[in-house]
Amino acid sequence: MESTRLKQQIEFIVEIDRLKRVFRQNVVIGTAEQENDAEHSWHLAVMAMLLLEYSSEKLNSSKVLKMLLIHDLVEIHAGDTFCYDKEGNLDKLEREQRAADKLFNILPSDQAQEIMDLWEEFEAVETPEARYAASLDRLQPLLLNYNTFGHTWKRPGITSKNVLQRNQLLEKPVPELWDLAQEIIEDSIQKGYLKRS
Amino acid sequence: MESTRLKQQIEFIVEIDRLKRVFRQNVVIGTAEQENDAEHSWHLAVMAMLLLEYSSEKLNSSKVLKMLLIHDLVEIHAGDTFCYDKEGNLDKLEREQRAADKLFNILPSDQAQEIMDLWEEFEAVETPEARYAASLDRLQPLLLNYNTFGHTWKRPGITSKNVLQRNQLLEKPVPELWDLAQEIIEDSIQKGYLKRS
Repeated sequence: MESTRLKQQIEFIVEIDRLKRVFRQNVVIGTAEQENDAEHSWHLAVMAMLLLEYSSEKLNSSKVLKMLLIHDLVEIHAGDTFCYDKEGNLDKLEREQRAADKLFNILPSDQAQEIMDLWEEFEAVETPEARYAASLDRLQPLLLNYNTFGHTWKRPGITSKNVLQRNQLLEKPVPELWDLAQEIIEDSIQKGYLKRS
Repeated sequence: MESTRLKQQIEFIVEIDRLKRVFRQNVVIGTAEQENDAEHSWHLAVMAMLLLEYSSEKLNSSKVLKMLLIHDLVEIHAGDTFCYDKEGNLDKLEREQRAADKLFNILPSDQAQEIMDLWEEFEAVETPEARYAASLDRLQPLLLNYNTFGHTWKRPGITSKNVLQRNQLLEKPVPELWDLAQEIIEDSIQKGYLKRS
């Protein structure tokens, strides 16, 4: 192979193929099959392209796309943690930090750092790009659940309060999408997809 | 829902969920399951982020990402056409153009046009961005085949000549990746994954 640098890059590209087998809680619309993280990341990136006009802050759209493309890579080692799983979320950060160190460092150090920075920025939700990206990461499963008769919402203990709280993050970064989310949640209650609390 | 414009955008976002069930010829590494177009598009976009330095031409990287994220959407209606299927490739363009008209026009007209322009630019392979994107679209299945013991290459009639010809597109846009592709093809022949012709 040509160089150590290219070899590291190709090794990483082959390694992250595994994201296609990290399964999420949602199912793909019209199927009984769980969505995986690669599909989810792709879907978010396309949403980011199309919904930019709803951001209340000016954004670097290229950074948003990169952030969304890599935001779930750590789950290759850390697994998917269901957002309403209190216990699983206690050590999520620690597990994911270890996963990031292990995975990103396959890359040449400059690129490892670039991906690490993007991932940490996404996780911190403190910049306009991260707020927009995190909003889409809430809205996409809401759309999938709404279009699969509330698949994930049927689990014991989940009510409209949980879903509203989780989606309230949209309120400031994307106010019109927050209105939409509330309408979808209300309609889901009416349709019997989600218990009112 | 808030507005007709947002309604159209959400309808499109829900509709393209179907890309997750358009299956390709490759399998996901370490599995017997076919890769789908959403996974493939995500993988290409991450590759585009990481291999930019090998492009022989200066690129608008944001445009490359967008192009790769939407490049296979038409297959929701037109299906995946195996690259070595001569008959299927005869009417591919016509089927895909009809699919593009049907699918992209769910969007508000300005965004429908933007996606159409990106897709047509990708298909024409006449700009630096399209050449780079097309190169990655060749290299990714090569990497998957190499890491799955030549899964797709085991089909009747496929030899190293077909694979070399298909990957020769890399020669000018990404010369170092073309060298890599040739090494992988040679090694695949040695390992018995691919018949020499």
